Amino acid sequence: MSSAKDEAGTGKPPMRDALVTAAFRLFLERGYEQTTVDDIVALAGVGRRSFFRYFPSKEDVVFPDHERCLADMTDFLAGGSDDDEPVGRVCDAARLVLRMYAENPTFSVQRYRLTKRVPGLRAYELSVVWRYERALAEYLRRRFAARREGTLQADVIAAAVVAAHNNALRSWLRSDGQGEASTAVDHALAYVRSAFGGAPVPPAAEQPADVVVVVARRGAPLWRVVQEIEATLGRD
Amino acid sequence: MSSAKDEAGTGKPPMRDALVTAAFRLFLERGYEQTTVDDIVALAGVGRRSFFRYFPSKEDVVFPDHERCLADMTDFLAGGSDDDEPVGRVCDAARLVLRMYAENPTFSVQRYRLTKRVPGLRAYELSVVWRYERALAEYLRRRFAARREGTLQADVIAAAVVAAHNNALRSWLRSDGQGEASTAVDHALAYVRSAFGGAPVPPAAEQPADVVVVVARRGAPLWRVVQEIEATLGRD
Repeated sequence: MSSAKDEAGTGKPPMRDALVTAAFRLFLERGYEQTTVDDIVALAGVGRRSFFRYFPSKEDVVFPDHERCLADMTDFLAGGSDDDEPVGRVCDAARLVLRMYAENPTFSVQRYRLTKRVPGLRAYELSVVWRYERALAEYLRRRFAARREGTLQADVIAAAVVAAHNNALRSWLRSDGQGEASTAVDHALAYVRSAFGGAPVPPAAEQPADVVVVVARRGAPLWRVVQEIEATLGRD
Repeated sequence: MSSAKDEAGTGKPPMRDALVTAAFRLFLERGYEQTTVDDIVALAGVGRRSFFRYFPSKEDVVFPDHERCLADMTDFLAGGSDDDEPVGRVCDAARLVLRMYAENPTFSVQRYRLTKRVPGLRAYELSVVWRYERALAEYLRRRFAARREGTLQADVIAAAVVAAHNNALRSWLRSDGQGEASTAVDHALAYVRSAFGGAPVPPAAEQPADVVVVVARRGAPLWRVVQEIEATLGRD
């Protein structure tokens, strides 16, 4: 909502924000299904055409910032360089989504509760999540173009990043937006990096030629071995 | 479709199969949106109520076997033991979905093309995929209940398994169902296991006490190190 322009320059919330505020007030008071677009525009004091100028449908007013966030994510990924460690880059891109939620915890928690109750909104959210995942996967497919298994690895890593992000995001939303969402998400994304990403690529000139030796019991679970390597590669 | 009963015992396709066959003939001839449930029942020679006895909506006739497959998957996961290596078990569960597609390549390829063209069917498919992913994640959450990061790991691994499965499945569907779908899926799932799963758990009595030593250049990408460990743990 912060991206909406203040059309009149009056300091009052712009029309788009007013529509979102009115919509959520009605959704919470009457329920989502019981609220019509006519109800929303009447409370916001604008015409139907104004609503549809900003939102293609009633579902879209529930997720007013995803289009901006998707565009931000695409720009962010397009703006990187070949020196970026690819998995780290998509983790950073996923953090843009978190930032959008964390900008307004009260609104995000209200929407989370609403989405859980309304099957149509859950379906809408799945399609949004899918678009984020595709944006991450497309970036990774480009970066992995020279790998024989590039598209497979890209799709799997994108899905893992989205799942980790959403696991942490949902924990934060379930706790009513208490605490630092970013801490939980950083932690979740570190797990994905430990499996796929490796340590940040050191600058070429400083790249040490030494080796890392990991000794593990044969029966140790692989994820534990990977954690150990990750810690060793990243720490000293 | 093979699970539908032959109600009359006449050897003719049962009513449920007849509805699916009629629906797909019309979807391919006229388009999905242009076909009504009335058109389908007229061609199949049955009444509207028969249609809705088998399928809640027109979308459901496009995916007639997912409910059975979801139930099979849930049963399969519930039927395991604590000795099963958890990641291997969810990979085997995902193979049930592949088997459903591979049972009838022609039908699966037709449906794939139809789903790509119709946004409503893509949304429906996303919700089905989400249900498979939740079934896998719920199983892993139970198996990882004692781990501090159990729910995070469960969600991430379930998403990775689904993404790997679907990457291979879509390649097979794009190739018009040529070749062995299971080979591509096995290969894709092996990548997920290399990241998360580790080798099959050897029986306790035979568990070797020796260690595995991996030496890697510090600059090596982690996924490459993991592949090496996986190969070492799994091979000898």
